[in-house]
Amino acid sequence: MASSSSPSVLLFLLLFTIAATAKTSESLSTVFPRAILGSALKQVRNAKKPKPNFPFKTQYFPQLLDHFTFTPKSSTIFYQKYLVNTQYWTHGAPIFVYTGNEGDIDWFASNTGFLLDIAPSFRAMLVFIEHRFYGESMPFGKESYKSPETLGYLNSQQALADFAVLIRSLKQNLSSEASPVVVFGGSYGGMLAAWFRLKYPHVAIGALASSAPILQFDDITPWSSFYDAVSQDFKEASLNCYEVIKGSWAELDAISAKEGGLAEVSRTFRTCKDINSVYSARDWLWSAFVYTAMVNYPTKANFMMPLPAYPVAEMCKIIDRFPHGATNVSRAFAAASLYYNYSGTEKCFDLENGKDAHGLHGWDWQACTEMVMPLTCSNESMFPPSAFEYKEFADECTRKYGVMPRPHWITTEFGGSRIEQVLKRSASNIIFSNGMQDPWSRGSVLKNISASIVALVTKKGAHHVDFRLATKEDPDWLIEQRRQEVEIIQKWIHDYNADLKQ
Amino acid sequence: MASSSSPSVLLFLLLFTIAATAKTSESLSTVFPRAILGSALKQVRNAKKPKPNFPFKTQYFPQLLDHFTFTPKSSTIFYQKYLVNTQYWTHGAPIFVYTGNEGDIDWFASNTGFLLDIAPSFRAMLVFIEHRFYGESMPFGKESYKSPETLGYLNSQQALADFAVLIRSLKQNLSSEASPVVVFGGSYGGMLAAWFRLKYPHVAIGALASSAPILQFDDITPWSSFYDAVSQDFKEASLNCYEVIKGSWAELDAISAKEGGLAEVSRTFRTCKDINSVYSARDWLWSAFVYTAMVNYPTKANFMMPLPAYPVAEMCKIIDRFPHGATNVSRAFAAASLYYNYSGTEKCFDLENGKDAHGLHGWDWQACTEMVMPLTCSNESMFPPSAFEYKEFADECTRKYGVMPRPHWITTEFGGSRIEQVLKRSASNIIFSNGMQDPWSRGSVLKNISASIVALVTKKGAHHVDFRLATKEDPDWLIEQRRQEVEIIQKWIHDYNADLKQ
Repeated sequence: MASSSSPSVLLFLLLFTIAATAKTSESLSTVFPRAILGSALKQVRNAKKPKPNFPFKTQYFPQLLDHFTFTPKSSTIFYQKYLVNTQYWTHGAPIFVYTGNEGDIDWFASNTGFLLDIAPSFRAMLVFIEHRFYGESMPFGKESYKSPETLGYLNSQQALADFAVLIRSLKQNLSSEASPVVVFGGSYGGMLAAWFRLKYPHVAIGALASSAPILQFDDITPWSSFYDAVSQDFKEASLNCYEVIKGSWAELDAISAKEGGLAEVSRTFRTCKDINSVYSARDWLWSAFVYTAMVNYPTKANFMMPLPAYPVAEMCKIIDRFPHGATNVSRAFAAASLYYNYSGTEKCFDLENGKDAHGLHGWDWQACTEMVMPLTCSNESMFPPSAFEYKEFADECTRKYGVMPRPHWITTEFGGSRIEQVLKRSASNIIFSNGMQDPWSRGSVLKNISASIVALVTKKGAHHVDFRLATKEDPDWLIEQRRQEVEIIQKWIHDYNADLKQ
Repeated sequence: MASSSSPSVLLFLLLFTIAATAKTSESLSTVFPRAILGSALKQVRNAKKPKPNFPFKTQYFPQLLDHFTFTPKSSTIFYQKYLVNTQYWTHGAPIFVYTGNEGDIDWFASNTGFLLDIAPSFRAMLVFIEHRFYGESMPFGKESYKSPETLGYLNSQQALADFAVLIRSLKQNLSSEASPVVVFGGSYGGMLAAWFRLKYPHVAIGALASSAPILQFDDITPWSSFYDAVSQDFKEASLNCYEVIKGSWAELDAISAKEGGLAEVSRTFRTCKDINSVYSARDWLWSAFVYTAMVNYPTKANFMMPLPAYPVAEMCKIIDRFPHGATNVSRAFAAASLYYNYSGTEKCFDLENGKDAHGLHGWDWQACTEMVMPLTCSNESMFPPSAFEYKEFADECTRKYGVMPRPHWITTEFGGSRIEQVLKRSASNIIFSNGMQDPWSRGSVLKNISASIVALVTKKGAHHVDFRLATKEDPDWLIEQRRQEVEIIQKWIHDYNADLKQ
């Protein structure tokens, strides 16, 4: 099938990035840990203005372009943005570091209220480090995305080394080398947090990796499990809902194949202007269902789009309430509209011009190089069946970026099959937290591996819901999950301090 | 003092490299695991002819130039040499990998007879992997050492990734993915073996790191401990011997400062032609004492130079037997001659044209970039006191290679202070074997860290003596050290197989 690999590639790009809310807050501070170089400084001067009430100070760290070679170019310095909150910290107390993922760091900081919630009881300093090639942390300024010559330095191992170098320097500058560091991350950031604990246990005493699909590589996790999980969310809400969505794709194709079909689809989808391809409508629906499953939170939340509590059930109510005889496509459209227009303010929808408000497009490069996570749609899913054809995927990456993917590199570098047995004997202090509503949970660690590598799984949780600011409406299972996280982290710090005294 | 930092820099280069014997054996096989690229093939065709009775087959692996970036250049392929012995192996049985260090891999293979000794009882396959930029494994052929543009790819992290990629591919080609891999290495190769177990526990189930000074970085180990240990070896053999050597340096300077002094020194040192600098004589003596301490083996051995059993004691006997009134310099010269001329065949000595028979000069680059291991001489040592001046060192590296060292990178990447506490909680299955005669032992792990990270220390052992082929003259303590190593490795394999069955 012609477009078999496109949904997965597209979704790599978007899925991770939808996972935190859109309160884009910028702030500026000119605290430089070391000497400032001319061109990098200019970059920093162009940084955006601070936002009031943002509880972090923005700083910039002179970071090395390439930690793993010693060519003259590798020693180029760029300014890596990081956010700091010291209001609860006392000297020697813990430092909680968020290992930034594929977007502006302010955006992640604004959507990881959990750290602000727990900082006082730990007297913890909070540090959110922006991932290279995202937000303001551009090694080559505006040229950073120009070609593989520049983008080549965007990858997870360089990012992990950035974190290690920055944390070491920060602790040294604070004269607080003995402060225990715990790393936190969600989604791709959760993968980075877990990998950081594995590769840099001398820098971080533990990691809380929320919704981190570290097993979604090679053939460790069945490729169809992601979309099967999305489908399961809808099926659990309502069997009819699942069947309507499943039936909508063929209907959509049939309508668009008719003469004037695209115009009809445009009318049905209330598009601001006629669409050029039926795939625009298909992807629009697709994204709405996938993202809503990911963020199927137990409370009202304001992400890229505001949504009610348990939005999958709400979508299914819309579908189920339709009068008998309504088409599957019109029902699916109405359900998807909940995602795009819960506030009810949209007069029409722009299906073909997606915005990238949080600077997320670098993920596409990462997915084409190291982050090869094959996803397919099985016959049991509510999506049109599709395969993952590696050759087609690789050709597309070569065409787009001039690079060939390295599909087995992540499992060579970080481990793959039988990773549980490996971690049991050679690692410690990692929490893998997951909610089973989140389709990414299927590629994560869902069982305890050892006494100190534990899985905290909730049936009703969604994509790193535990990282969100606590609300009065939080259900007991979420309160309990967070309580366990705090308790485990307290034990790590206790053990570390006991070691220190020896 | 003018030359304060030169001894240490010089010794980084040479010390590691003297540590295995010189039986340079080359062999050729044209088994290529994957497709062959034109230019790389030419390189392989130029490989040297096989040596008879060498128990390894030579192979070449198409290796990636840069594992940690995705620039177009990073995907360049070069051919990495490795040696394989499968005579004892059966499918599924262990694979013992020697993580090659800074020299021709044939040379290390010829001097790690321990692996051939133990292979039959484990039915183990032996694989010796050459380190990139040494021997025949030149990423840019004859241009590899041309400039920092090419040499920039020579470092330990790239080498570790090379090992991981090669091992994974090898196991896949053998359809023996479940075979447990144990890594072995001595000296810098021992550091690589230990680090490999830390960074790639999913690839190797354990590491035997012999004489691996992983703590000789930053200020973890006192900088003077190395030369103090050399001095201690001589002092233990004879206090007079230590005092004669200690007194020889000023005498040497005094002689050379006289008119015609260098000619007198040349006569005393029986040089083939007159030397141009007193430092030539000084370094010649210096190297003899340091290398002899390192290889102060309990049996006769044939290294770069053949030596008797316990050569330090033999040197001291020469010094102590001198008639009263002989100068310290003439005694020191006679002692050093044991190292350079035990066979008695040298008519004269060439002090100013050292050979690099084993392709070791890449270490100088490594010492100037990441492997910054400061060594100083204290007043208590038998060497002239010297300091380590970082600025002077860095200037010299910049002058020579156009790069600045990254003196804190190794401890950032692999851990430094309090590494024992870190390893106790987050690693397993490493043996650090050391002999206290070896000055490098002072920068290694000398105490058990946990039940499975153990130190096997012998009082009379020298630089990775455990890795040498067993001989009938081996003392009980050496037999016992090797027995313990075998027993521990058996347990690792047993535990691994038990995990597999689960």
